[in-house]
Amino acid sequence: MRDNLVEQIISEVMNKQTGGAAKHSAASFAGCGLTEFVGTALGHTIGLVIANVDNQLHEIMNIDKKYRSIGILGARTGAGPHIFAADEAIKATNSEILSIELARDTEGGGGHGCLIIFGAEDVSDVRRAIEVALSEIERTMGDVYGSPAGHLEFQYTARASYALNKAFGAPVGKSFGLTCASPAAIGIVIADAAAKSAVIEPIGYASPAKGTSFSNEVIFTFAGDSGAVRQAVIAAREIGLQLLATLDPAEIKSTTTPYI
Amino acid sequence: MRDNLVEQIISEVMNKQTGGAAKHSAASFAGCGLTEFVGTALGHTIGLVIANVDNQLHEIMNIDKKYRSIGILGARTGAGPHIFAADEAIKATNSEILSIELARDTEGGGGHGCLIIFGAEDVSDVRRAIEVALSEIERTMGDVYGSPAGHLEFQYTARASYALNKAFGAPVGKSFGLTCASPAAIGIVIADAAAKSAVIEPIGYASPAKGTSFSNEVIFTFAGDSGAVRQAVIAAREIGLQLLATLDPAEIKSTTTPYI
Amino acid sequence: MRDNLVEQIISEVMNKQTGGAAKHSAASFAGCGLTEFVGTALGHTIGLVIANVDNQLHEIMNIDKKYRSIGILGARTGAGPHIFAADEAIKATNSEILSIELARDTEGGGGHGCLIIFGAEDVSDVRRAIEVALSEIERTMGDVYGSPAGHLEFQYTARASYALNKAFGAPVGKSFGLTCASPAAIGIVIADAAAKSAVIEPIGYASPAKGTSFSNEVIFTFAGDSGAVRQAVIAAREIGLQLLATLDPAEIKSTTTPYI
Repeated sequence: MRDNLVEQIISEVMNKQTGGAAKHSAASFAGCGLTEFVGTALGHTIGLVIANVDNQLHEIMNIDKKYRSIGILGARTGAGPHIFAADEAIKATNSEILSIELARDTEGGGGHGCLIIFGAEDVSDVRRAIEVALSEIERTMGDVYGSPAGHLEFQYTARASYALNKAFGAPVGKSFGLTCASPAAIGIVIADAAAKSAVIEPIGYASPAKGTSFSNEVIFTFAGDSGAVRQAVIAAREIGLQLLATLDPAEIKSTTTPYI
Repeated sequence: MRDNLVEQIISEVMNKQTGGAAKHSAASFAGCGLTEFVGTALGHTIGLVIANVDNQLHEIMNIDKKYRSIGILGARTGAGPHIFAADEAIKATNSEILSIELARDTEGGGGHGCLIIFGAEDVSDVRRAIEVALSEIERTMGDVYGSPAGHLEFQYTARASYALNKAFGAPVGKSFGLTCASPAAIGIVIADAAAKSAVIEPIGYASPAKGTSFSNEVIFTFAGDSGAVRQAVIAAREIGLQLLATLDPAEIKSTTTPYI
Repeated sequence: MRDNLVEQIISEVMNKQTGGAAKHSAASFAGCGLTEFVGTALGHTIGLVIANVDNQLHEIMNIDKKYRSIGILGARTGAGPHIFAADEAIKATNSEILSIELARDTEGGGGHGCLIIFGAEDVSDVRRAIEVALSEIERTMGDVYGSPAGHLEFQYTARASYALNKAFGAPVGKSFGLTCASPAAIGIVIADAAAKSAVIEPIGYASPAKGTSFSNEVIFTFAGDSGAVRQAVIAAREIGLQLLATLDPAEIKSTTTPYI
């Protein structure tokens, strides 16, 4: 019995450690009295605002001075879900994306964490952007799947906006999709499955040494007709789930609820 | 008693997390009905093939079009063992190494994961290459040693071929060896021990900020007379095991069975 | 009860895994018969010396030949604490800093490990430098705070010397401070708090994609009047502790004992 207990615990811990499996809690807007605090979300995500960035810091951060107020969306685990969430925030608010940086993180997993900065002249605009982004993350984590061996991520939007353009070079206004897997080897096969399953236009291919922050992922991005992009993502997901399952017997679960 | 149990569990988990200690299973060629799947091996390693890479993907991956078929060897934990295994695969089959990329991974450890792509005109050639590589990994993991504090790795071959040439600049046809340790500090002292113990020709020195993917390793590679290279590796291993032991009381074990 | 036990264990493991929380042991100068071994410290830190670096290794490491002896300070977890400790070692001994490299490590956390090399003509000088640095690490880990969600780090010195100059461009002889947080988002807000709380001169701003090794941190460094630098660090610490607490209910503790 003790051994069973040990196994059970180890499996739980490994699950907590791995890639996408950051099942902490949905977006929460409570927890701190500071005016800079907006809220938290899955993946050790935090949303913050600075109404009036200190002049000296503004300069050394190399941000255009016209953005007096900045919004900050950061996470230990996840980058794709946050960039797609930020894209919705940009569509819904009067703010702009100033920078998107990908840390090599995921708390022991093979992927990225992120740091996304929004700018506006008015703090209410960036606060609203951060709120929208935090709320979207539960959805955009829906097609992130984790196991002790790695993770899979799929994203899809009917209409890309400026966050996806900045991060991935997505054509603004067109449908845009993403497939991603760790270990990276799986990412190539699902990219191939995506490309073969529908008429899409490849936009980017990122691998451990090129286009990622040395993460153990292959990320394939593509644009096209909305139906085709969606079909490509779905075809890739089906293959990815089968391949990731060969590396570990644990059941592969969505981080929240699949949306594609 | 409960505290002992807690300690035992923590130690087991830490062991599972750390560097080289990826004791999951030897090479396995079962587990998935997809034709792309070849097999799995230690270190969350997966071997895959694509018989006919999609044209658009081919282009964006920047692979020479003459390689219609590619083989993919990828792992969460391990790069040296996979490159030495790939070298045997290149010797044994009619395929070529197209790229070797090192992710900053090892699932919480201080080292690398990898993504190695083989190419051939015929899928049977790359499939055979991946099979050979997967089978070799049990051996090439033999001188990978892990503890909760870090890991050590030693490799040796009597005759380097094109995978070692591509990854490390090894002179083709000559004996070639590698010493590696995490934390990186230990890697310098064992490199010094290797260089002093025999007449070898240094080929490369990689450290966290130069030549690695920001891994916490120093990797020293060298060529020379077969006996000298082997002697240098053995001298380094003796020192490395003593130094790594100072950081954690856990017994330091080979991942499989030492081969040098 | 079993569930409680599971939770307790997971929390302990997560704590052990995360960022700054490398509570293994204070500096220890015992443990190994090798003359190269000096001692160990918190964060899986090891201190080593080589009295007479092998000629071939010297060359490939690209170190000035006049430094026959090198001292090596390396860690899996921590870079700031080690650089500030090395700065004290430089002040106290007749040795020089040859290189400072930051690995993307912290054993599953969001920060750095490090590899610092000291040089001297005489081995007793670098040995003394490593001894001083190892002894300082207990203090410099004092304002490193960890939780399962991330970590915070604060450093302060009344007078910066050559290690801080090499690593951060600190003006030699002036007071110098550092604020750092993971996830990186928190690091921006505490940098802003520091900049607003006192008259300081910003020296550097590092983020996941620029100036770090893709770590999930924002690091802000500044010089100035000793009282102002200290006040800025204290103001940042107060904000940082509140923000990090929103991501995880675990109590946030100093790794050793706060010194600022």
